[in-house]
Amino acid sequence: MDPLSDAKVIDSWHTNAAAWSDIVRDQGVESRRLVTDAAIVDAVTRRAPRRVLDLGCGEGWLSRRLAQEHHMDVLGVDAIPDLVRRAQALGGARYEVASYESLATRHFDPPFDAVVANFSLLGAEAVDGVVARVPAWLSAGGCFIVQTVHPLVANGERPYRTGWREGSWAGFPSAFTDPAPWYFRTTADWISLVVRAGLAPVEVLEPLHPTTERPASLLIVARRA
Amino acid sequence: MDPLSDAKVIDSWHTNAAAWSDIVRDQGVESRRLVTDAAIVDAVTRRAPRRVLDLGCGEGWLSRRLAQEHHMDVLGVDAIPDLVRRAQALGGARYEVASYESLATRHFDPPFDAVVANFSLLGAEAVDGVVARVPAWLSAGGCFIVQTVHPLVANGERPYRTGWREGSWAGFPSAFTDPAPWYFRTTADWISLVVRAGLAPVEVLEPLHPTTERPASLLIVARRA
Repeated sequence: MDPLSDAKVIDSWHTNAAAWSDIVRDQGVESRRLVTDAAIVDAVTRRAPRRVLDLGCGEGWLSRRLAQEHHMDVLGVDAIPDLVRRAQALGGARYEVASYESLATRHFDPPFDAVVANFSLLGAEAVDGVVARVPAWLSAGGCFIVQTVHPLVANGERPYRTGWREGSWAGFPSAFTDPAPWYFRTTADWISLVVRAGLAPVEVLEPLHPTTERPASLLIVARRA
Repeated sequence: MDPLSDAKVIDSWHTNAAAWSDIVRDQGVESRRLVTDAAIVDAVTRRAPRRVLDLGCGEGWLSRRLAQEHHMDVLGVDAIPDLVRRAQALGGARYEVASYESLATRHFDPPFDAVVANFSLLGAEAVDGVVARVPAWLSAGGCFIVQTVHPLVANGERPYRTGWREGSWAGFPSAFTDPAPWYFRTTADWISLVVRAGLAPVEVLEPLHPTTERPASLLIVARRA
């Protein structure tokens, strides 16, 4: 298997599904606990969607939060069966196993008022494909809401160019192994991704980490034209 | 005079008009010579506008380039009379003295196909006001094209928050004095500025400096809806 590929992303997340569920449920990722969990919940709730698709829902915390605390009708989808099983076990929202590739031919009726991808667009062609499909799932005026690592902050000192990067679990417990590669995109290329899909960016947010006072993430809200 | 104010921006540029004209004409600013001059010319010419407003044209190099090499009908406006006189002396395009505040009530008929601001949106309220006015000057489908310092690169290690910053001529010849303050905006706030004006971002570019391989600027193209 190509170590820098969409297939390897899925393979690595299969391996780490249990460790990931545990750390998310224990609020063990500081930037999520301090900044980005609240940022995505706030970005979604301000748009007041009724029906939400949580794209790459993982173990389901965001779907549950939006359904149980904000009374939205939420479907969470993820390619990793073990994560979806863990999400289903806690309930609150509906969950399905679906790869981004399999969603290319999927229809949803009625459509969603918001499609949300919270740190879940990690690949290359698979991501290009699923984002191209988002407008077909959105109601008129519906929004696509993406949160991702902040490109310039995450990039560190490397050349600032879109492309595959090797993964790392630096800072994570030893239960994490075989880190997933990820496809780095510049801010310019994130915007291009949504514009090419036919969506209109209406908001870009860079929520600050309270200690470093640098952006903890990049958050893009784009509306179906 | 408040040292961190729109008024002080204008005051400092009066002082440095001659030195600025000289360095631009000698191609003495490396990032402009290597990256950002070509980036703005390319961004404008790809949109193939016929009529262009060069907002904050300075000594006029971009107006001349677009008019003389790309056969566009260009009006350059700038608040600093000394810069406009220098622009007029070389000709090529039309030039007028106009502050951003004075443009608030200005009409242009026929409208422009592109309004371009190349490193010229340096202030706070004055910039908010003039950008709000841009859609009224654009033809249907016309574009606003802004190039500015790249927020995260320019920000260095300071807290990443929009606000006034003291100026500096570090790296410039000793002919430059009394540096203008500038109003730092995050990428999120640049996008917000154009969206609040009623414009739709269609392209964000981060042209790379060839040596550092980090962004030399942020360039936003937004279309009149």
